[in-house]
Amino acid sequence: MPASALSTDLYQLTMMAGYFATGRHLSTTATFELFARRLPPNRQFLIAAGLEPFLDYLERLRFTGEDVRALQREPALAKAPPDFFGYLQQFSFTGTLRAVPEGTPVFANEPLLQITAPIPQAQLVETAALAFLNFQTSVASKAARVVIAAAGRPVMEFGARRAHGLEAALFAARAAFIAGCAGTSYIEAGIRFGIPLSGTMAHSWVLSGTDELTAFKDYERLFPGHAVLLLDTYDTVAAAKLIVRAGMTPAAVRLDSGNLDALSREVRAIFDAAGLGSTRILASGDLDETSIADLVARAAPVDGFGVGTSIVTSIDAPALGGVYKLVEVEENGKIRGVMKTSPGKGTWPGKKQVWRVLQRGTAVQDIVAFETEPAPAGATPLLRVVMREGARVDPQPSLADSREWCGARLAEMPAFVRDLAGSEAYPVRPSEALKQSVESRSTT
Amino acid sequence: MPASALSTDLYQLTMMAGYFATGRHLSTTATFELFARRLPPNRQFLIAAGLEPFLDYLERLRFTGEDVRALQREPALAKAPPDFFGYLQQFSFTGTLRAVPEGTPVFANEPLLQITAPIPQAQLVETAALAFLNFQTSVASKAARVVIAAAGRPVMEFGARRAHGLEAALFAARAAFIAGCAGTSYIEAGIRFGIPLSGTMAHSWVLSGTDELTAFKDYERLFPGHAVLLLDTYDTVAAAKLIVRAGMTPAAVRLDSGNLDALSREVRAIFDAAGLGSTRILASGDLDETSIADLVARAAPVDGFGVGTSIVTSIDAPALGGVYKLVEVEENGKIRGVMKTSPGKGTWPGKKQVWRVLQRGTAVQDIVAFETEPAPAGATPLLRVVMREGARVDPQPSLADSREWCGARLAEMPAFVRDLAGSEAYPVRPSEALKQSVESRSTT
Repeated sequence: MPASALSTDLYQLTMMAGYFATGRHLSTTATFELFARRLPPNRQFLIAAGLEPFLDYLERLRFTGEDVRALQREPALAKAPPDFFGYLQQFSFTGTLRAVPEGTPVFANEPLLQITAPIPQAQLVETAALAFLNFQTSVASKAARVVIAAAGRPVMEFGARRAHGLEAALFAARAAFIAGCAGTSYIEAGIRFGIPLSGTMAHSWVLSGTDELTAFKDYERLFPGHAVLLLDTYDTVAAAKLIVRAGMTPAAVRLDSGNLDALSREVRAIFDAAGLGSTRILASGDLDETSIADLVARAAPVDGFGVGTSIVTSIDAPALGGVYKLVEVEENGKIRGVMKTSPGKGTWPGKKQVWRVLQRGTAVQDIVAFETEPAPAGATPLLRVVMREGARVDPQPSLADSREWCGARLAEMPAFVRDLAGSEAYPVRPSEALKQSVESRSTT
Repeated sequence: MPASALSTDLYQLTMMAGYFATGRHLSTTATFELFARRLPPNRQFLIAAGLEPFLDYLERLRFTGEDVRALQREPALAKAPPDFFGYLQQFSFTGTLRAVPEGTPVFANEPLLQITAPIPQAQLVETAALAFLNFQTSVASKAARVVIAAAGRPVMEFGARRAHGLEAALFAARAAFIAGCAGTSYIEAGIRFGIPLSGTMAHSWVLSGTDELTAFKDYERLFPGHAVLLLDTYDTVAAAKLIVRAGMTPAAVRLDSGNLDALSREVRAIFDAAGLGSTRILASGDLDETSIADLVARAAPVDGFGVGTSIVTSIDAPALGGVYKLVEVEENGKIRGVMKTSPGKGTWPGKKQVWRVLQRGTAVQDIVAFETEPAPAGATPLLRVVMREGARVDPQPSLADSREWCGARLAEMPAFVRDLAGSEAYPVRPSEALKQSVESRSTT
């Protein structure tokens, strides 16, 4: 399903037909850039994610015969040139992409992705580019905050049931892992992407059995070393005492409701008094970076967190609002930068590069410049070629590489960027040349 | 991808292995119910959605050989009984489902879905049931509010680019249509589900051409009667005047930024003065029920709305928080209701029915009762059998039927339920028998 060429908006097809009808599929190469105009609420940074799945999508992008016949029946395309449907039948994506590596912290007005392709191709893939990158970047950005809050304690992503469908669950698990989560409960993500899998037990396991202790013992016997006993089906403290009285030594227990600070201390004390010092306590239940930071600040004896809804839906900022804007047109060899001037929605023209300026290992500012400008002193470019004329450029990073990259790049940001309650904005500046270009066009 | 049996949480598989190891795959039939404990913020009602796609998923649910081999390599399942993997290889879903029809308004604590199946089966499908119904119900509930706000003007769903991936875009378009949207921009949803497709043009169409007027004329020539000209690439009012001066008579134009109330009046006046009284004005740009209700209240001359992000992400309530709870266990023929007693997360035991009590055509209250209780006077049951022993029950409603059903059922709710700013809660009461059952168990 995700590889269908019809996974796009109708106007992409009508505009494609228009480019075809006016000969621009041959004459015109377009460059679009994908960026967020502003950071969402409660976000000091974004973590770029979704690129590799989007490249997979592009590589497989074809119109099947059935797709083309369906489009031929669509009333809006009734007057499209008949040849246009033959063009679709032959279609494959031959564009060149530059992108910020997954796991990189990025900010408002910085292109995460730049696509240069014959204009109908670049137009067609807008919807998918945004659907992949907006969502997965949102999740990675939220997950990074939760991981920061957990201050070294592992965070497991448990959110499939609250994700926006099963595909969203898959990509959310992937994005959360890039951003530093230690694993996921979602089997398909574990198997497809090699993310460590983690699971506990549900209340139904306890409720369906004859009694709580039997449920615990059965699970422990079946999954020695892996069983995480869920304590709150009836009463968390009573369940902890039950475990001790029965002489069990579970690897871990999970608290899923109530006052997690108080309960974790009470359970820890019960276990420690009984010599169960190595039994870990995991906490879950509508957690987010605020509640986790609070538990950490109180030094609650919680050894790890299971976080679902807040990460997989990026609950306080569920839509990134990234846009995909035409910035340059090359028609019959002649290049011109283009920009919108709509109030509040203006854009910067031309193909760009984002430079991160580091001083003594710490990022001090980013500069958005024309691609052709020389590197500013001490600056590293964020955009790299990842696909050339439809073919992926090797080597592709592994998911573990992207996760490590994310940690390293976040660590080199100034501390105020990682401050979850912070309000200081990391400086992102247009180059002089870019600023002058915008000003000269806006006043004409 | 959505039909994978691995699209589930690890603990569903470990619990399945546990049920298998203890013989309960043969001895025990479980009933789970899916419901929301409370309404999300800003919601007076939910619109049930996602059922038919979930039934499709269940019908196709199988473990491939590759799936089973992947599970055999998973460390958490290392001690699962070897026979368990043969059981998975033979697996198909044979359960019975009762559900509220898609498009029905529902409230907190009302089961939308009830699954009765051998316990490992009912357990396995929890993740998918929640991922399908939580998300699609969220979108339908939000879309219904937007449609109410539009007060008869058509609302087109345009949100694919902000949906949580391409599959989410597909099901969001479907849920929005059930809730009363007039169509979608997402081609795959149009073709797969028969939803009317709608599209306009993007700013890139204007920016990529030589000038705005040529862009408009080319589009109008190619898509006569379908072209919707986008006015705000440079200046909305100037673009309207350009159209008039050129003697064009477009079917419709779209305003996408700025003060939509003022601009729609200005554009309307320009068009009316030039005899373009039949050119419709569509508005878009981060609209939701609040901004639409405001435009409608001001009598802004807007003929239709394009709404994206707010609908497809249910932006102010992106996670429904529906849960899937074990309510009854039948073991070797002996039936018992079960309930959690965790603080704030307690459940009502037993298989239930939801009754909607109507007086003179208006719903006055819902009663949640044991399935075996007789019908209250004047009451209609909301839960119906939709799948029996793994086979769908005919006839399945068409999407158009579900949309009509939604409109009719919403219309019979009392007016305060449809009041977007309302705070009065529609009464949902447990039956006496249910109440007594909960009280007697909670005090033991």
